[in-house]
Amino acid sequence: MALEPITVVFEPAGKRDRFKNGTPILVAAEELGVGIRSECGKETTCGKCKIKVVAGSDLLNKVTNSERGLLTQQEIQDGYRLSCAAKISVRDSSTKGIVTVFVPSESRLGIRRIQVKGMEQPVPLNPAIRKIHLTLEKPTISNPIADDEGLITKLENATGMRNLKMRYGLSRSFAKIIREANWDITTTIWNEKEIIDVEPNDTTSDNYGAAVDIGTSKIVSYLVNLNTGEVAAAGMMENPQIQYGEDILNRILYATQSPENQQKIMKVVADGINTVMQSACIEAQETKIGNIHEVTVVGNTAMTHLFLGIEPRFLSLAPYVPAMKRSIDVEAKRIGLKIHPEGNVHMLPCVAGYVGADAVADVIATGMHEKDEISLLVDVGTNGEVFLGNREELLSCSCAAGPAFEGTQIRYGMKAVTGAIEKVRIKPKTLEVEYETIGGEKPIGLCGSALVDIVAELLKAGVISTRGRFNHETTKSSRLIEKEEEGKLSTSFIIARKGEAAINNDITVSNKDVSEIQLAKAALHTGCEILMQKKGIHEKDIDHAYISGAFGNYLNPENAKTIGLIPDIQTEKITFAGNTALAGAKMALISRSIRELADKLSRQIKYVELMAEENFKREFVASILLPYKDLSKYPSVQRYVKADS
Amino acid sequence: MALEPITVVFEPAGKRDRFKNGTPILVAAEELGVGIRSECGKETTCGKCKIKVVAGSDLLNKVTNSERGLLTQQEIQDGYRLSCAAKISVRDSSTKGIVTVFVPSESRLGIRRIQVKGMEQPVPLNPAIRKIHLTLEKPTISNPIADDEGLITKLENATGMRNLKMRYGLSRSFAKIIREANWDITTTIWNEKEIIDVEPNDTTSDNYGAAVDIGTSKIVSYLVNLNTGEVAAAGMMENPQIQYGEDILNRILYATQSPENQQKIMKVVADGINTVMQSACIEAQETKIGNIHEVTVVGNTAMTHLFLGIEPRFLSLAPYVPAMKRSIDVEAKRIGLKIHPEGNVHMLPCVAGYVGADAVADVIATGMHEKDEISLLVDVGTNGEVFLGNREELLSCSCAAGPAFEGTQIRYGMKAVTGAIEKVRIKPKTLEVEYETIGGEKPIGLCGSALVDIVAELLKAGVISTRGRFNHETTKSSRLIEKEEEGKLSTSFIIARKGEAAINNDITVSNKDVSEIQLAKAALHTGCEILMQKKGIHEKDIDHAYISGAFGNYLNPENAKTIGLIPDIQTEKITFAGNTALAGAKMALISRSIRELADKLSRQIKYVELMAEENFKREFVASILLPYKDLSKYPSVQRYVKADS
Repeated sequence: MALEPITVVFEPAGKRDRFKNGTPILVAAEELGVGIRSECGKETTCGKCKIKVVAGSDLLNKVTNSERGLLTQQEIQDGYRLSCAAKISVRDSSTKGIVTVFVPSESRLGIRRIQVKGMEQPVPLNPAIRKIHLTLEKPTISNPIADDEGLITKLENATGMRNLKMRYGLSRSFAKIIREANWDITTTIWNEKEIIDVEPNDTTSDNYGAAVDIGTSKIVSYLVNLNTGEVAAAGMMENPQIQYGEDILNRILYATQSPENQQKIMKVVADGINTVMQSACIEAQETKIGNIHEVTVVGNTAMTHLFLGIEPRFLSLAPYVPAMKRSIDVEAKRIGLKIHPEGNVHMLPCVAGYVGADAVADVIATGMHEKDEISLLVDVGTNGEVFLGNREELLSCSCAAGPAFEGTQIRYGMKAVTGAIEKVRIKPKTLEVEYETIGGEKPIGLCGSALVDIVAELLKAGVISTRGRFNHETTKSSRLIEKEEEGKLSTSFIIARKGEAAINNDITVSNKDVSEIQLAKAALHTGCEILMQKKGIHEKDIDHAYISGAFGNYLNPENAKTIGLIPDIQTEKITFAGNTALAGAKMALISRSIRELADKLSRQIKYVELMAEENFKREFVASILLPYKDLSKYPSVQRYVKADS
Repeated sequence: MALEPITVVFEPAGKRDRFKNGTPILVAAEELGVGIRSECGKETTCGKCKIKVVAGSDLLNKVTNSERGLLTQQEIQDGYRLSCAAKISVRDSSTKGIVTVFVPSESRLGIRRIQVKGMEQPVPLNPAIRKIHLTLEKPTISNPIADDEGLITKLENATGMRNLKMRYGLSRSFAKIIREANWDITTTIWNEKEIIDVEPNDTTSDNYGAAVDIGTSKIVSYLVNLNTGEVAAAGMMENPQIQYGEDILNRILYATQSPENQQKIMKVVADGINTVMQSACIEAQETKIGNIHEVTVVGNTAMTHLFLGIEPRFLSLAPYVPAMKRSIDVEAKRIGLKIHPEGNVHMLPCVAGYVGADAVADVIATGMHEKDEISLLVDVGTNGEVFLGNREELLSCSCAAGPAFEGTQIRYGMKAVTGAIEKVRIKPKTLEVEYETIGGEKPIGLCGSALVDIVAELLKAGVISTRGRFNHETTKSSRLIEKEEEGKLSTSFIIARKGEAAINNDITVSNKDVSEIQLAKAALHTGCEILMQKKGIHEKDIDHAYISGAFGNYLNPENAKTIGLIPDIQTEKITFAGNTALAGAKMALISRSIRELADKLSRQIKYVELMAEENFKREFVASILLPYKDLSKYPSVQRYVKADS
């Protein structure tokens, strides 16, 4: 005897429906449009989808081991579950009852502000997707016009387009659809070439696309109304590929071990993108994921190769060339995206193995390619990119900065989320520390912008030398302590004392942490320096600098210059551009001419392979110093520091 | 412990190899290139793949029930098996030995002459598939050119083509291939647009395509060398869809009952085409099926819809319109063809629900569309088509002739294979019968051309009236007998007496058989007549007539006119064009301009729906008479017959 579905009620929204045995509560929530956070894509690793079971816990499965790892003992006693792991579990058909769950505010989607905005250029709306509402003529025995012929002729007359073709997948089923719709339909055209959908009635107002940036650590997405070009909602989650390796090389290694591994790593990122798009749809309440007809995707070259299942091996071997540099269009269903099955995925082109489609999007979003003035663009990320030039010529290079600015490999480092210290000031004389946290909460760690502030402020206060070493002799402060780090004593500086912090420890910055920041900034600085040398220009010749990527708007530009993260350029010439990769992907989503531009830039941007440069090592070593070996290049910093011997 | 593979030896070819447990003998033969006939696509229904097991029968499975139905008791005792059903079956790992099988001549492929040739027009060689051998430059750290960029640039320089794109499927794997090939590769380009294959080394000489005609009853195919345009081999088998219905309407009904049914009927025809192509490859010994990069397909509209899985329902409901009239290109792998996975299937366009791509191919093969003279084209088949006109205008219609000319629904009817009577003469005075059989064997039945001869000769001899009734009073012959047919007495005429025939019965033609032929020819004649009326022309205005389809070259044109199968046109103006559908498909395979022509003809040919014609019924009734009601339209026949009252 079949088991009866069980009613699940979500409070405080008050939404309810019946769901069959085995349904995870998170899936039930998604079906009802109740937004619950999930950053791990239902992998039961992020712990964000916490709910409280108010009634009917006996109709659910037992608390799983994964949940025990992510919930406290108290939470479990209080009836908290993870909604991805809690499933309807009914023993027999006589079982009756209702499950009532409460979604606490921290688990609700739409509460947390998502930092995905980026600078972008205005573009005329000309998306690849067009929806046209048509009333077809019914064929008759005296005018037995074929279904495709009738539809295409009418559509070409309505749009002025020519040589439209119908996608094979659609050609299989549309004859039935147009009859069920009584010949009143909406067609979806892709790229003025292919008819990819036929829906009953007028659905022209439900016309959405998504722009996606696959970062090594984060997947971010915009849901965009293609009729207006406006962002309807945004979504973000950790890149779930992280389970196969923190860094790119480990993920490539994993993927190349077997075809199964390659499929797995491909599926996990597709699932992640689906989750992000789904949550954006739930937030916007204007469409559903299956109605999205196009997605534009950017990411670094390794991410885009892994996402599309393209052989990634040779990205990890010299000379580090991509298999596919050019843009790619592929049906969504072939790569596991759950948008409309005939929907299109447009991957933007890249420049080189380590200058990806995301970097091309950066350039497009800043508009530096169409200006006469010389611009410098630094995209700060695990794999940083630097561009220098103008409409006549653009040079690019990639810099292995590592994840220090994202908080990884820093003792108290963390991402820029609630509770992170994001701004720090240190009074030069008293070494008194002032800081601000995201959300104004008690501090739990240090995000990238705080780390830049700290290194700069310690340098200006003379606490650390231009080599990044603590000056024990000249610094008299109880904040400077000796602390055991990985089994040996190391000097650290206390930013927030145990009492102030929300954690049971001092929040400190160690000698090793400072070194990590130095290595990261040296990588980026070397890129800037070598590109300037290649172009034969100096800091004063740079008319504008764009900083995009991880920091968003929180980086203090003076401090960035003080530590030599960027060249010494007047602060008023610096723009924090935010997530320009996603902004560029969005521009390409709403404008076909931006795609052409991207293809052109991919060919035109010159790639400089730093490792092939004679002076790479010398420049890198010089760039490790704070701000740089040649202080004459940092006049604005010179007054604070003196060169070490 | 794994079972050891078993050696199988094929005599008289003497080929041998080891095959794993469970391998059917037919599959082993295919792998060794030993050609064994199979018309049912390994469904164990045709009985053509008979072999004799000479040794090692204990290493095979037991004789199956299907084999018992298709082999005689004696054959089974003699060690005969069907090679599709006989499989290696080893009980344990200690089993050793060799299986030796003998392939009797009647089971060998290439012995039987296959009647698939058709008239065709010479075309300049310009296939959609082009293979180009290239040596690529290796990327280096100082010139880190991306794999796609290097390949496409080189290819565009070599060919002069522009804007080439790589198929997504290929983009996933080619980076590895080019390195394993040490940068010496052959690329395959489709339609001057897409790169669909990259193979190691120079494979330009292995460049093959296939042309396929999916008939309601037969699938026929040419394997074509795309470097020369020449046919390397041909293949044919019964359309295995027949298991889901003899006629088109029953197959459509079956397919529309469930998505599973639609998938089944789609798969069975794809498997059939694979079998036919495979056997052509084995016969030609020049390539293998997985190396074929393109297939052009024609067929009647129902067959093409069922093959591509396009909704066929509305072909069976008034106004009988196709879902897809236009040509379609689709990746082979999406529809189950086992050619190269990125290979292309090009389906030619049709004209109407019952004037298919096969009919468009007929026109192209005859060249009637480019002549000033007026041509009549009659394609005789279960669903016959008639075309009339010249370069300025072509009219078309479809005629439900039924399968009588293929021998179905005729008591002793059969297809034109060995043992079939194909030509018949009856002496008017003595009613002595002379006949010829295919292969000179003892007769076993009557094929279509013989049926036309018989009706004509009986009419001329006065044995039957213009109404098709036997004239008992005036006919004195022991050949005219009363015989029980389906429980009632019916008059029949003996063509071959029991003693002469290879069957244990007289081979006769009954009143009912003559009626079936009359209905079939009336359908075609009505089409000719109405098209002539539409154009306002008469028999004398027709400069040339082409008869294509089932009959091949064996139809006696005088007799065809005598029974009114075709209008009364001078015999020297009549050409038997053979399988023009396959010939047209082959022309499209080797020439892109023929595809453009087909698309143009599909739009330009005017379709006349006979059922919408006011005088359809009147003409049909008049056409049932032999040769026709109005004898003044048949001056060449008038001397033999007088109109009945």
